[in-house]
Amino acid sequence: MRVDRRKFLLGALSVPAGAVLAKTGMGLLGEQSAASEAVLRAADLKLATGTPFPLVALPGKAPMGQVYDRPPNYETPAEHLIGQQNYPYTDNEYYYVRYREASVLQLTPENYRLKIGGDAADNEITLTLDELKRRASQTIGAVGVCSGEGRGLHHPMIPGMPWTKGDLSCAEWTGVPLNDLLDEVGVKSSALHVSFGGGRVISLAKPQYWRSYLLETIREYEPLVATQMNGEDIPFWNGYPVRLVFPGTWAPTWTKQLVEIDIRTTPNEMEWSGREITPNELLPFSLIVTPTDGTQIPVGREVELTGVAYDKGAGITKVEVSQDEGRTWEPAELEKSYGKYTWRVWHATVGFDRTGENRVLCRATNAEGEVQPTDPAPDVMETGARKETAAKNFAGVYEVV
Amino acid sequence: MRVDRRKFLLGALSVPAGAVLAKTGMGLLGEQSAASEAVLRAADLKLATGTPFPLVALPGKAPMGQVYDRPPNYETPAEHLIGQQNYPYTDNEYYYVRYREASVLQLTPENYRLKIGGDAADNEITLTLDELKRRASQTIGAVGVCSGEGRGLHHPMIPGMPWTKGDLSCAEWTGVPLNDLLDEVGVKSSALHVSFGGGRVISLAKPQYWRSYLLETIREYEPLVATQMNGEDIPFWNGYPVRLVFPGTWAPTWTKQLVEIDIRTTPNEMEWSGREITPNELLPFSLIVTPTDGTQIPVGREVELTGVAYDKGAGITKVEVSQDEGRTWEPAELEKSYGKYTWRVWHATVGFDRTGENRVLCRATNAEGEVQPTDPAPDVMETGARKETAAKNFAGVYEVV
Repeated sequence: MRVDRRKFLLGALSVPAGAVLAKTGMGLLGEQSAASEAVLRAADLKLATGTPFPLVALPGKAPMGQVYDRPPNYETPAEHLIGQQNYPYTDNEYYYVRYREASVLQLTPENYRLKIGGDAADNEITLTLDELKRRASQTIGAVGVCSGEGRGLHHPMIPGMPWTKGDLSCAEWTGVPLNDLLDEVGVKSSALHVSFGGGRVISLAKPQYWRSYLLETIREYEPLVATQMNGEDIPFWNGYPVRLVFPGTWAPTWTKQLVEIDIRTTPNEMEWSGREITPNELLPFSLIVTPTDGTQIPVGREVELTGVAYDKGAGITKVEVSQDEGRTWEPAELEKSYGKYTWRVWHATVGFDRTGENRVLCRATNAEGEVQPTDPAPDVMETGARKETAAKNFAGVYEVV
Repeated sequence: MRVDRRKFLLGALSVPAGAVLAKTGMGLLGEQSAASEAVLRAADLKLATGTPFPLVALPGKAPMGQVYDRPPNYETPAEHLIGQQNYPYTDNEYYYVRYREASVLQLTPENYRLKIGGDAADNEITLTLDELKRRASQTIGAVGVCSGEGRGLHHPMIPGMPWTKGDLSCAEWTGVPLNDLLDEVGVKSSALHVSFGGGRVISLAKPQYWRSYLLETIREYEPLVATQMNGEDIPFWNGYPVRLVFPGTWAPTWTKQLVEIDIRTTPNEMEWSGREITPNELLPFSLIVTPTDGTQIPVGREVELTGVAYDKGAGITKVEVSQDEGRTWEPAELEKSYGKYTWRVWHATVGFDRTGENRVLCRATNAEGEVQPTDPAPDVMETGARKETAAKNFAGVYEVV
């Protein structure tokens, strides 16, 4: 058992369980007082499906929440965020799928090539998939999360796909450190930018997905040219056969179907979304995995919440939960760290003393003292998607019966 | 003036305006009682922007509500549904934009060709844009509406782009009746299906947008191979240079960038979304155009609502409005018909006797007695998008002050 299941009662529930049961008029006190000492875990509850969308399976994938069909956008049902096969990582078949492009090159081991060159490279090299795999020397766990996470939970509406809670996953990636590849081709002193080209068609004007960063940023972040995900081939829907993994940053920087690395003296005019010369770092964030939203929970019974939390890699130091919309907070218990970029699993035990809809918020704090905000920023439309990480947008919502 | 502005007060407001003002404690009764007799029209009010999304202009287009950037999905702000230049049609620059594809062929007058043939055609012909324009003999007004209209207003969430009220427009289309073209190439007695290929890439597996219908359906519906929209070239974002217009049916049947017509003895395996051998007809639907949602309206003052209503072409015979969530309805006044597939403009005068958020519903009835539903169907996820047309999802929501 991974966790010391110390029980605590939160907010209005910090009274003896028997008193709570009496207040709610459940009766049966004699019979249930012993049982009420036990904590209901996810396995004891009939979980709701942790996505409001229809469950549809893409080829090679498990049924996931279909947010949009074409381009394919499927969210991980919350109860599958933490996988069974490679704890605490998401199983490959449940890793979320997010494309902006209908057209993705279907690369095979035979036709795949990675070209590394550019006007600021000493040499140009072209590697096959086998040659890349032979160079693989690093395995690193990392959270991949779309900048639209939780967008559909925000009011008023925000433009874009209405993702709920499953636009993220966590996996262990294996591949070649990018800096090793840069050293192998040789980087001229005139080099300023490194661009990553993916085999995806954004539009006829931008027929390839390009992301571009300052060389000094690349050196600092140590991204990985990954050829495996959780010890297996990367699924087609997650970037097969090669994907750039940029730990601690949003997934738009993680170029899928990576076919070209361009070391440059100038910015890349084909940059997909302008001139984002440094990646966006992940802010502290936490989420309840189980029980899933809509789960029926008996009034007066204690329930174990399990969740995940992550940040840019500074390290999650605290997760707290609130049953009064953020006025008061109680600490959750963190499991051990599986790596600075891997999410931390946490647990908290709560009880509910009134029937009807009950909400539980959670928030994360990192080693630099950054705290996940409770309320959404009022200027979310102007300032971009990551303001959606506010705890109130991600409340666990339960039906207490 | 197009409309007899007969005034009526709805629901709880059917008391003298003076009494209403007194009840709400606005004071200033002496000065305002005369003014309260006048109806505030949209021009007299500071309208809110009739879309909750940021206003972004695509090349050649006016600023519209950006629901999603790539593929481009932009909704018409409600106050621009009825255009200025070609009443009651939507101005070309405000006609809504909806693509599922990032890759659209950029066709020029020089490189455009329409191929009409197939295994059930007597001849195959290929027409240039000029040749098509010379054959243009019909102009028809028609509502184009996406099957996702109002999806973002539905609770619980529905998968897909969260459109609000502007995923529709109405235009006058000019072109060649499809049946004339079929007669010109000659249709064999073995013909069963007609397929329409657009210059858009859905995916590598389906590199062209195909829709396919039974020949007998085509003969009945009399679609148009359109080369003009409101007397001008069709905007790139709306299907330039040639678009199939299928009046009375949802816009997914209206193949944009039409480059191929295939007369077939068998179904088309490249069909975009399965085997929809007959198009989906439009159900009776109505919408408030002005005042837009969020407009501040003085309490106790009468306000003129302007809206549109349409159906499959049977003809709108009635539009009603409700201020009590559909318990009681009062008739609106219909402007004259501009054509059986063109939306009908309607007007109604309402007043509000309490401050705060006020909702107004509207519903349409057609000549066949079909009535727009008040409540959304409970099974909307299973039965598809058009159940979203329920009046409660499209309420006008005002801030009465």
